[in-house]
Amino acid sequence: MVPHLTTALTGPINELEARILESMPAIERWFRLEWMEHTPAFYCSVDLRNAGYKLAPVATDLFPGGFNHLTPEMLPLGVQAAQAAIEKICPEARNLLVIPDADLADPFYGASVQRLMEIFTMAGLNVRLGSLDPALKEPQRFAIADGGELTIEPVLRSRTRLGLKDFDPCTILLNTDLALGIPRELQNLHEQYLLPPLHATWSVRRKSRHFQSYEDVAKKFAKLLGMDPWLITPQHTRCGEVDFDTGPEGLECVRSNVDATLQKVRRKYKEYGIGERPFVVLKADHGNRGQGVLTLRDVKDLPDAATLRQHLGLAKDGEAITEVIIQEGVPTYERIHSTVAEPVVTMIDRYVVGGYYRVHADRGADENLGGPGSRYVPLAFAEGTHLPKAGGKPGASAPNRFYMYGVIGRLAMLAAAYELEATDPEAENFE
Amino acid sequence: MVPHLTTALTGPINELEARILESMPAIERWFRLEWMEHTPAFYCSVDLRNAGYKLAPVATDLFPGGFNHLTPEMLPLGVQAAQAAIEKICPEARNLLVIPDADLADPFYGASVQRLMEIFTMAGLNVRLGSLDPALKEPQRFAIADGGELTIEPVLRSRTRLGLKDFDPCTILLNTDLALGIPRELQNLHEQYLLPPLHATWSVRRKSRHFQSYEDVAKKFAKLLGMDPWLITPQHTRCGEVDFDTGPEGLECVRSNVDATLQKVRRKYKEYGIGERPFVVLKADHGNRGQGVLTLRDVKDLPDAATLRQHLGLAKDGEAITEVIIQEGVPTYERIHSTVAEPVVTMIDRYVVGGYYRVHADRGADENLGGPGSRYVPLAFAEGTHLPKAGGKPGASAPNRFYMYGVIGRLAMLAAAYELEATDPEAENFE
Repeated sequence: MVPHLTTALTGPINELEARILESMPAIERWFRLEWMEHTPAFYCSVDLRNAGYKLAPVATDLFPGGFNHLTPEMLPLGVQAAQAAIEKICPEARNLLVIPDADLADPFYGASVQRLMEIFTMAGLNVRLGSLDPALKEPQRFAIADGGELTIEPVLRSRTRLGLKDFDPCTILLNTDLALGIPRELQNLHEQYLLPPLHATWSVRRKSRHFQSYEDVAKKFAKLLGMDPWLITPQHTRCGEVDFDTGPEGLECVRSNVDATLQKVRRKYKEYGIGERPFVVLKADHGNRGQGVLTLRDVKDLPDAATLRQHLGLAKDGEAITEVIIQEGVPTYERIHSTVAEPVVTMIDRYVVGGYYRVHADRGADENLGGPGSRYVPLAFAEGTHLPKAGGKPGASAPNRFYMYGVIGRLAMLAAAYELEATDPEAENFE
Repeated sequence: MVPHLTTALTGPINELEARILESMPAIERWFRLEWMEHTPAFYCSVDLRNAGYKLAPVATDLFPGGFNHLTPEMLPLGVQAAQAAIEKICPEARNLLVIPDADLADPFYGASVQRLMEIFTMAGLNVRLGSLDPALKEPQRFAIADGGELTIEPVLRSRTRLGLKDFDPCTILLNTDLALGIPRELQNLHEQYLLPPLHATWSVRRKSRHFQSYEDVAKKFAKLLGMDPWLITPQHTRCGEVDFDTGPEGLECVRSNVDATLQKVRRKYKEYGIGERPFVVLKADHGNRGQGVLTLRDVKDLPDAATLRQHLGLAKDGEAITEVIIQEGVPTYERIHSTVAEPVVTMIDRYVVGGYYRVHADRGADENLGGPGSRYVPLAFAEGTHLPKAGGKPGASAPNRFYMYGVIGRLAMLAAAYELEATDPEAENFE
């Protein structure tokens, strides 16, 4: 179940959406059974693209920010979900240590962390912030966007536990993706719960592995609904060793995969009578800071190695060899005041707790809306008259579009659960 | 955790409320641990009275109505809680059979049932209504208050299961208190979940037993907070065999208990410097239809047996001997547009999912607000600026009064769990 939020897209409900809405009890039961077998990744946010003919996740963040974009009305949903999460992990817990991202000095990120702390405080925990920065010796205060402030303290590591001065947590919650590597303080914490697990950080995780799991999940779900999984799946391929320093042959894998993906999408567009020009999106396969994406409509437009490296945000790190994911581009046809927007769905445990729009005034429907210039628009609860009514006459009330977004968001979260099971270094191998 | 709702009372926060607000993480942890040991009674609603100096539950309904008074914004909270409830009981369930009260013809009750069905449909179940009325041979339709309609079907009982035509539910949800007795169709259903259990119906349950459990719960909670349990407990006594037909001596127990309770309350008022005149409320100890309550400020005002019987709504049944509960009266000082109001807190599983006010234009602060003339005012979510902020400076944001209502409501729900454990006829007796 999903909060009923107002969405920007107000056109007629298409076939996919109608199918999802009419299958609600079956879908919810399916999720219920899946969550009996698979453990959600504590929390996540999923970026969606709604092209009208197709709706798909394009990124799944396992260390989500943006909690400050959830409206106060959504807060109790977050708290209820947080309580469910805690009960399963550490029901006797008193203390929760949150490790935020290093950029706590950004007052907007600070506002997100503060909202996250609020959720877990209301769920019944003493919440404090810990810093992994060895330069931090004393508690430090940061101003946050809406006027308050946050205090972060240096972590104290004993042989087996991590905490703060006079603060021994049962669970450590990471809100940082650790793209640059896993600090020693977080390794071998066998007495405490560290969530999400270390193999969910960008030092280990790969986007292509996530979308491989998403394909599995989407296939199962599409079978349940009797539909083509392509309608909810962005196709993807990867190149494992792109060598930016060996001239054109280093990009050969990228070139052939861009071409193959564009051809596949072209066939699908033809099958569905979609009169648009397909495009693909190239990204670094691992997450990293300041990374960019490159949109291509034709393999001929593939730039040279140096330009591509710069586009993907790899220039600064000077990495010669890296992994690239080539993903089918899904345009977003949602607009807020004529500005391109993409919905972001936020989840805690297995529950959708809210959503908001990411908008970018200077970008087009086929471009990445992240990075400098992004703004965020909180979603409000939809009016009561728009609620679907069980037992009411068909058509008596308008269904809620956000329900579909919550379903696709949860498919991506379930995919993350599959992914983390498959990549768990401590999993027993029964093969 | 509790939704942040606007409440009518806007005066300064008193000491009890301040204590509860500042203890939030400890309170939530305490509930978490209690719910590990005790099973909530599926759903309930609790009537509260806020006298300023004292806040107490006065009635706990285990077959709640009023779901139509929850606003659409509260619905996702209800659904999330319903999902948590289902997962524990019958995760593979497809079908839920709801047995509503016989007065489905009341379009307002119909609207509550419709909202309840909506919650469980969105939680992922096919929901249908069954009637125990042997006169019903065909599905029957009822118009509901906001324009839709409901269909109720005759139940079909096999040797071991209850269902409808082509509808075999995993769980049967009672929304009727069965005050007149337990129909044979509901007995010995060992293959299906019947919730709440039969010993939660008014054919078995006694108010005094509930408040005995509430006293235990309130004592534990008051110890956690280091406060006097009287501040959240209505004192009560009971008379087990009131004989209305034997003249004055039949009422002797009532008389002496009214007197004793008034004296106890008088002492407490003196201790706290409360300049009011205490009163007690007399009710039938079992629930029954059309029952009334009698408010007394002095034992001299106790009417004769016939008048008392009429006041308690027992006249029609002609019961000569019955049980009476004498409860400390708690005035309500909440007003909506100068009309006396009492908050009602609605819970599913162990979660507060919303609340509303019961108001009565013709009644005083010391009177029962139920019965003909009652109106209901949905509560809205409170403004964002009123949220307590974790990590913010003290006093930076106004706390939310409804949090306290949610805490006391949950204490009553926990008391119902204790009560149902103690009265379970199938419980093993290890003594």
